[in-house]
Amino acid sequence: MDAEIFDQFLDQLERYVRERLIPAEKDVIANDAIPDDIVQEMKDMGLFGLTVPEEYGGAGLNITQYAKVVKTMAYAAPAYRSIFSINVGMFNSAIKNGGTDAQKAEWWPRIAAGEIACFGLTEPGSGSDSAAMATIARPDPDGNGWVLNGTKRYITNAPHASVGLIMARTEKDALPKNAHVSAFIVPMDTPGVTVGSPDHKMGQAGSHIADIMLDDVHVPGDALLGGETGKGFRFAMQSLDNGRISVGAASTGYARRALDSALRYANERKAFGEPIANFQLIQQMLAESWTEIYAAESMMADVTARVDRGENTIRHAAAFKVFASEMCGRVVDRVVQIYGGAGYLAEYDAERFFRDARIYRIYEGTTQILQLQIAKHMLREWAGSV
Amino acid sequence: MDAEIFDQFLDQLERYVRERLIPAEKDVIANDAIPDDIVQEMKDMGLFGLTVPEEYGGAGLNITQYAKVVKTMAYAAPAYRSIFSINVGMFNSAIKNGGTDAQKAEWWPRIAAGEIACFGLTEPGSGSDSAAMATIARPDPDGNGWVLNGTKRYITNAPHASVGLIMARTEKDALPKNAHVSAFIVPMDTPGVTVGSPDHKMGQAGSHIADIMLDDVHVPGDALLGGETGKGFRFAMQSLDNGRISVGAASTGYARRALDSALRYANERKAFGEPIANFQLIQQMLAESWTEIYAAESMMADVTARVDRGENTIRHAAAFKVFASEMCGRVVDRVVQIYGGAGYLAEYDAERFFRDARIYRIYEGTTQILQLQIAKHMLREWAGSV
Amino acid sequence: MDAEIFDQFLDQLERYVRERLIPAEKDVIANDAIPDDIVQEMKDMGLFGLTVPEEYGGAGLNITQYAKVVKTMAYAAPAYRSIFSINVGMFNSAIKNGGTDAQKAEWWPRIAAGEIACFGLTEPGSGSDSAAMATIARPDPDGNGWVLNGTKRYITNAPHASVGLIMARTEKDALPKNAHVSAFIVPMDTPGVTVGSPDHKMGQAGSHIADIMLDDVHVPGDALLGGETGKGFRFAMQSLDNGRISVGAASTGYARRALDSALRYANERKAFGEPIANFQLIQQMLAESWTEIYAAESMMADVTARVDRGENTIRHAAAFKVFASEMCGRVVDRVVQIYGGAGYLAEYDAERFFRDARIYRIYEGTTQILQLQIAKHMLREWAGSV
Amino acid sequence: MDAEIFDQFLDQLERYVRERLIPAEKDVIANDAIPDDIVQEMKDMGLFGLTVPEEYGGAGLNITQYAKVVKTMAYAAPAYRSIFSINVGMFNSAIKNGGTDAQKAEWWPRIAAGEIACFGLTEPGSGSDSAAMATIARPDPDGNGWVLNGTKRYITNAPHASVGLIMARTEKDALPKNAHVSAFIVPMDTPGVTVGSPDHKMGQAGSHIADIMLDDVHVPGDALLGGETGKGFRFAMQSLDNGRISVGAASTGYARRALDSALRYANERKAFGEPIANFQLIQQMLAESWTEIYAAESMMADVTARVDRGENTIRHAAAFKVFASEMCGRVVDRVVQIYGGAGYLAEYDAERFFRDARIYRIYEGTTQILQLQIAKHMLREWAGSV
Repeated sequence: MDAEIFDQFLDQLERYVRERLIPAEKDVIANDAIPDDIVQEMKDMGLFGLTVPEEYGGAGLNITQYAKVVKTMAYAAPAYRSIFSINVGMFNSAIKNGGTDAQKAEWWPRIAAGEIACFGLTEPGSGSDSAAMATIARPDPDGNGWVLNGTKRYITNAPHASVGLIMARTEKDALPKNAHVSAFIVPMDTPGVTVGSPDHKMGQAGSHIADIMLDDVHVPGDALLGGETGKGFRFAMQSLDNGRISVGAASTGYARRALDSALRYANERKAFGEPIANFQLIQQMLAESWTEIYAAESMMADVTARVDRGENTIRHAAAFKVFASEMCGRVVDRVVQIYGGAGYLAEYDAERFFRDARIYRIYEGTTQILQLQIAKHMLREWAGSV
Repeated sequence: MDAEIFDQFLDQLERYVRERLIPAEKDVIANDAIPDDIVQEMKDMGLFGLTVPEEYGGAGLNITQYAKVVKTMAYAAPAYRSIFSINVGMFNSAIKNGGTDAQKAEWWPRIAAGEIACFGLTEPGSGSDSAAMATIARPDPDGNGWVLNGTKRYITNAPHASVGLIMARTEKDALPKNAHVSAFIVPMDTPGVTVGSPDHKMGQAGSHIADIMLDDVHVPGDALLGGETGKGFRFAMQSLDNGRISVGAASTGYARRALDSALRYANERKAFGEPIANFQLIQQMLAESWTEIYAAESMMADVTARVDRGENTIRHAAAFKVFASEMCGRVVDRVVQIYGGAGYLAEYDAERFFRDARIYRIYEGTTQILQLQIAKHMLREWAGSV
Repeated sequence: MDAEIFDQFLDQLERYVRERLIPAEKDVIANDAIPDDIVQEMKDMGLFGLTVPEEYGGAGLNITQYAKVVKTMAYAAPAYRSIFSINVGMFNSAIKNGGTDAQKAEWWPRIAAGEIACFGLTEPGSGSDSAAMATIARPDPDGNGWVLNGTKRYITNAPHASVGLIMARTEKDALPKNAHVSAFIVPMDTPGVTVGSPDHKMGQAGSHIADIMLDDVHVPGDALLGGETGKGFRFAMQSLDNGRISVGAASTGYARRALDSALRYANERKAFGEPIANFQLIQQMLAESWTEIYAAESMMADVTARVDRGENTIRHAAAFKVFASEMCGRVVDRVVQIYGGAGYLAEYDAERFFRDARIYRIYEGTTQILQLQIAKHMLREWAGSV
Repeated sequence: MDAEIFDQFLDQLERYVRERLIPAEKDVIANDAIPDDIVQEMKDMGLFGLTVPEEYGGAGLNITQYAKVVKTMAYAAPAYRSIFSINVGMFNSAIKNGGTDAQKAEWWPRIAAGEIACFGLTEPGSGSDSAAMATIARPDPDGNGWVLNGTKRYITNAPHASVGLIMARTEKDALPKNAHVSAFIVPMDTPGVTVGSPDHKMGQAGSHIADIMLDDVHVPGDALLGGETGKGFRFAMQSLDNGRISVGAASTGYARRALDSALRYANERKAFGEPIANFQLIQQMLAESWTEIYAAESMMADVTARVDRGENTIRHAAAFKVFASEMCGRVVDRVVQIYGGAGYLAEYDAERFFRDARIYRIYEGTTQILQLQIAKHMLREWAGSV
């Protein structure tokens, strides 16, 4: 999107966040759902197709712009980001990286218009570990299509999605470079697809994950992403950078929300006759938080610029996600501590910041998994440089 | 209690925790209440009067024994400890330190039998800061009694209590050594006493805190703890060591529960074809947790032995509380991380460990407040040694 | 400096660092001094006048470029940066912010040519606390000049300097905004100026700090920076942003050096038949270090761009300095641990990385002092926004 | 040793530490050696044979007493402990666990009298990893003795020792339970034994490590510890608990020294017109340090009581060593920060505390190696309990 127009859009979005989304957080929490009219407004604003090319009805943001939108939205309750995050961060990215022209022509306008997508990779017995993937796609004996069977777990937006990108093995044996895995575009109303009850979670009210059960699900041949088997995992992995940048941006935006909340509380709450903001131990917690948020924001600017320049950013995106999510965890923890007793009560915001933020260090790759990926990338580079 | 008998009691209690309390945690969480029959069993076991002298119907535990009981109980859901903790840690301690013979004769048997007490110190505008206390006790114009007015906040067990120890100012101006504060034993069914709705909390299901409103509450003269004004805050403070040791013991017991849970999960959960317990990053989290729990257990043994020897333990008790509660926070955080995605779901235990434990770093003195107390104690000692 | 020319300069500098400075580190350490020919080469390269305007003989770097040079130089032993850091970070900055045209004309060409400057702020009894400053400048009774008396402590490059910028009080009583302090340009060969023996330090071999004693030091009237009294402290403070960015850049460059060293060692050192780089606990230390260095680099890009845009960066510069110096401390600590037993031996580099880096968290404002400054800046902003 | 006598001994030792050892630290540092007369006094006090049975001329301390002596000595410079630590922690322990009666009769009186021992396990290419051990002992073709060849690395006290316990492989192939390794008692004046120059270290002035080269070293048959091959590594490992407890005790004692030093400095050093001890951020560092030292002291009491009761303490000893050494690292780091600029200067104590303490996290098993051992012990226990 043109820079000047984007800046105007971001300004409007900030106002929308403060004037519309934050006041509605109460409803999101009470009903464990984003109000329908807000979802519609978000669709109208184009949030579900932020990175879809403009000629396909999307907003055509680059990654720098996209991350700024995510961070801005993440100043409000996490559910608001979550509802469009898979569309933009994973589904659209996989279509872009691997879709055929026909798939782009079909799906980009639909998700840009607000159809919700989900991304089916994780299973009960497999996460980052594709060798163990149990969902299987067999060629349909009656035609050119496929028959899928299996179960996907912890699938964000499964209860809301009209389409899922489902990873399934198309070879019995695990192959190098995960070539036994392919990706399928599966409308969620296809017979044989059922979605489980949403899982109860520690936080993130209004955002939902659930199992997807695939029981002899027939899809046509053109449901195979890219029209080729054996590339699904690669497409998925290419989308993960986007997903990680999105989680990093969300962590950063939410950390700033929490810090602003603590800053206000520390100025209002008095002890020993003065605002607790006057005490050095409170000041240190505020300053540490500000410093770390600033670091994450600076990383975000760097990594997104790299993506937009077309660089390989697997290590940078992982590092940003790790840093920002761990930082957010420390910030919300300090915020609870600044609130003191009030920090444990649902009447105040601090306790939900604390619960909501905990997932960021886990999904799209736990901190530990990503640290090992970063290290392995370093070691490969070192070996190459010898 | 005699050492041998105590060891038998502790063995029985461990079995009770594993066979009775842990299986009932589901109910505690579902109903936000301990089942009535379990409360009755706990009363029958003498848990509400653990440190009440045997001649008054209590179990006559010393502090070393008491802390072991707390730690054992804290292996199950926190509500089980919470329901008797004020009786033992605060109310009984205040009676022991400051009660008249008549007050001991009246109240010790009652709480030993299972009447539940609460402890009214904190107010909307005052916590550790007694100068700001707004609850006032005025001499009853019609007799030798007192009339109390004010509001107490975040009072543990207020909805269950039959008696409260209420701190109120008996002097208009703040006096040195908090001599403007006195303590009153107030039956909760006294006219003018009302209890607010329990606050919604981040965790600790089945444990309740609420406001207590005092509106022209008349109490007789012998409700004044110790029969003297001006000593209430001192009695309260003397009870705080006990309260802090109890929170430290609870943190330690709950950390061990969480670690055992993670150890089991790490052995059962597989990734890349082997239990995740085989991975060094998981092993490090297990080992760090075990090491820190061991440290806290060792501190508990030391500080409780000091109390039982009659030493001044204000610094040691604060340090134990700070260390154990912060340690528990780190352990439950690692446990969530070991569980990975499952760590965010209510279906597994890890997420409630995480929510439950967060309060330990806050109540009975936040980590920051206690650190300042420890430092000031160090500085006073240093000044004295010059 | 023109961007393209600067990039070439930086490339050359990187080669110089690897091919000339790093091999000479042995000599720097053995003699506690940079070899004279290297100092001369550094002068010839213009490193002592990096930010002096080109028309005065300097390199005319903006702050973004300057920080990159510092970071590049800081890949080698810290002494190499230290010898020119005061010229560029403090002295030149003060001249730029406060100097008269005559002072610029006199001093810029001299320092650009390699005369070494020092900066006299700290005293035995005062650091950030100017109210306690004891060095006094009195009007010379015989003329238009000044007579200085006092002692400055921990003055970097004092043994090498030909000129010092000396802060002295020109008013007996402390004034608001530190208006009792003025700054004087004092040639170090002025009668009455003596420099103490260099202090023995934990690390930073080849870099020297010493006391400066001023005993009835007469300077002419035009030695007063800016020609006005009462502005010295303000000029000094304006230079501190530069100084902090320089320390942050130095921390970042040195952290990368240490990490590269550890990466090599972890690939070469074997245990249990394989390189220790294969072990997850080593990998995690590598990845954490890389992640944090990346964060610091990203902050450096942001804060220096802000300075070059003319923004107020007092908070950002302090945050960058705090983050980068603390990060560097963590990185060198991990590097020692990766080296294991070899990490404690002078035969290997790790132990001096560890000693050298420790100062970064202390000078130009300790982490704690800067955190309080950051917090106070936040609080002032918050107050303004109400 | 009898408890009452021991208490008197400890009192005397504390005085000796404060009145004799601490004032002599300057000399230890200046000469990189403990003054001869102090070494002789330490021998006279029985410090080299603390745990040797009284009937063999030793002090007959149990481990609880021994650890207290180590902690008391460790309040002064580390060299004082180091010079007798191998005698007591490793050599005597190995003799006790594995020595024949004749070996006990020969060596216990000698080391109790002050002959210094060293312990030769680590090699250039092997540490914890005995499979890679390259030092070989072959049966002497001319008799019942052995011929040793190889190099030992980083051997504490090698330059001072009159006897070394040398681990060497007596089987070509690595065997289960390290049965290819045997232990030999080798007088250091045996022909073929040479000791390298002491390694230059980050800290620990006055304590020395060096290589030992064994070149066709003939020893008689009774030099084989226990008279049997294949048990050397086991004896060594059994001594490691002792060694780890000693390092833990040393870390704890030294941390207390550093904290006392910082407490004094914080009371004396003024900023903004008051002692820096008045500032909350300083207070927090003092309180955190005190709290953690208290934790380590409590662990020491527990683990040493377990050893004296004959329990298996491999996990507890490792945990104590890890906790105490990491704690000491944090404490000395805070102490440097409290000292501020003075913390970087050799004129003050803080910088050497910082350098000295760094080794504790490395030797006798790095933190990482020990964490993995602790975890594996946990996992084995868990497996057994299923």
